[in-house]
Amino acid sequence: MYRLYDVAIIGGGPAGITAAIYCARYRLSSIVFCEEFGGQVTKTHRIENYPGFKTISGVELAARFREQLEFNKVTIEESQVQGISKQGDTFLINAKTEARSVILAMGMKHRKLGIPGEEEFIGRGVSYCATCDGAFFRDKTVAVVGGNDSAAVAADILSQHAKKVYIIYRKESLRAEPAWIERLNAEPKIEIISKTNVVEIKGTSLVEKVILDTGKELKVDGVFIEIGSIPSTALTAGLGVKTDKDGFIPVDSSQATNIPGVYSAGDISSGSNRMWQIVAACSEGAIAAQSIFINLRKKTSSEF
Amino acid sequence: MYRLYDVAIIGGGPAGITAAIYCARYRLSSIVFCEEFGGQVTKTHRIENYPGFKTISGVELAARFREQLEFNKVTIEESQVQGISKQGDTFLINAKTEARSVILAMGMKHRKLGIPGEEEFIGRGVSYCATCDGAFFRDKTVAVVGGNDSAAVAADILSQHAKKVYIIYRKESLRAEPAWIERLNAEPKIEIISKTNVVEIKGTSLVEKVILDTGKELKVDGVFIEIGSIPSTALTAGLGVKTDKDGFIPVDSSQATNIPGVYSAGDISSGSNRMWQIVAACSEGAIAAQSIFINLRKKTSSEF
Repeated sequence: MYRLYDVAIIGGGPAGITAAIYCARYRLSSIVFCEEFGGQVTKTHRIENYPGFKTISGVELAARFREQLEFNKVTIEESQVQGISKQGDTFLINAKTEARSVILAMGMKHRKLGIPGEEEFIGRGVSYCATCDGAFFRDKTVAVVGGNDSAAVAADILSQHAKKVYIIYRKESLRAEPAWIERLNAEPKIEIISKTNVVEIKGTSLVEKVILDTGKELKVDGVFIEIGSIPSTALTAGLGVKTDKDGFIPVDSSQATNIPGVYSAGDISSGSNRMWQIVAACSEGAIAAQSIFINLRKKTSSEF
Repeated sequence: MYRLYDVAIIGGGPAGITAAIYCARYRLSSIVFCEEFGGQVTKTHRIENYPGFKTISGVELAARFREQLEFNKVTIEESQVQGISKQGDTFLINAKTEARSVILAMGMKHRKLGIPGEEEFIGRGVSYCATCDGAFFRDKTVAVVGGNDSAAVAADILSQHAKKVYIIYRKESLRAEPAWIERLNAEPKIEIISKTNVVEIKGTSLVEKVILDTGKELKVDGVFIEIGSIPSTALTAGLGVKTDKDGFIPVDSSQATNIPGVYSAGDISSGSNRMWQIVAACSEGAIAAQSIFINLRKKTSSEF
């Protein structure tokens, strides 16, 4: 027989990790499946907005998370989940692990430009989160790539720190909300470069410049790429879990999806006003675990 | 003139603290008013469900929070807020501090029995949170005082840890959901003592027994008091902020209340599926700060 867990947690970022901590506290058996423990946290250079740590590297916070899961005797399986299917009252993961409930916490991946230098300089000037990394560019020059609301917000956040912010956008005019565009236009530090693509990011140990398709190059210390995000929802279709038009999983206030027994938490879900922050993902993981605890205990009772 | 802040945060628990961290990251000026920095956290003996710390005392976590606010140059005013009023476009706190927005994060107070020994043994056997403190009573004997859903959940959580759980309730039968009551009845570790009140908690350095109004006494190592909570909403009426029938402040997904410019976060609000956990309060504080940032920046733009 398969090992039967109370909860299978798919994803080892802050949402999945916190769900596992709470499951352990509720004495629910759980297993965390993840390709890379820590998720996006491990790719964040420095975190200064997670309460409890005035400043910590993503790698160090992930190490603390791992230590906490080990302390709580949570099983971590670092392998890709190929498929989840419903089998009667339980769920089957990778055709070998059975669970009474599932928490989908696979997070999302920032959409990438796919240009030379992008991967190479992640954490060394290339970032996908102005809220997380903006303050590291005090009095520096940065470029935001993109023209949507996220790009506008990023430029606005960065203008609080940097001495100069370029917004580089492929179309003629930004498609952010008018109020954001007015704000950007009113900020002398911000310069919008339209009808332009970045074709390469260059530097030595850190980012030094971007090459544009107009043939020009710009000296910058940071490049914030804000061209959207892709929720990692490859596994949802097989389960019948609904996603919204942007690919996120709608959840109710208990983090439940449309499929009984399946919950979702973190960036992949529609919770926390789509804040996409570590502390919000953690909270959603905790709420999902609590909801499962309450439901499983009730189910057990009604069987008596 | 008064000092004008972007945000006045009322409450210095996890919600208020995280709101202040995020305000600082967004370069919004903020001031935190609190009677006691750290809120309920400082009254929690040991915390093992906050991600990032496998085990930490409440006092130590509060100290780390304070260090983080100082690092972010947040003004903390440790005094009671007597009143908040709206003055045109801004809010006036204690008739001397002006702010563009307010975050109500005053938390809640657990309803108390008001019996001898209760205050004396808080953190030394008396607790108001089974999720937080249950695991410290492994193989011990505990009493839960109360008969509602919270009391049932507390008894259920405690039965995962303790060797014996008494539920002491003043009425004839519990008023928790039937499923919970069935569950409690099915658990041999749990014994329900009805039509009984606890009149005193006794011990030396730690709790040792409770005295009942039937004249009996019970040897216990812990007493979990679950007779409801009282949101600290004394300040809401003057602002016109709505509260629900239980006294909590309804918020939308951006943590906004019914009054423009007034947000609410943490235990006092209706957010996070009423989970009343540190990490959930933190998340709500972060969301409120983000919402204010977006709104204030838009407002500034439209004035150009």
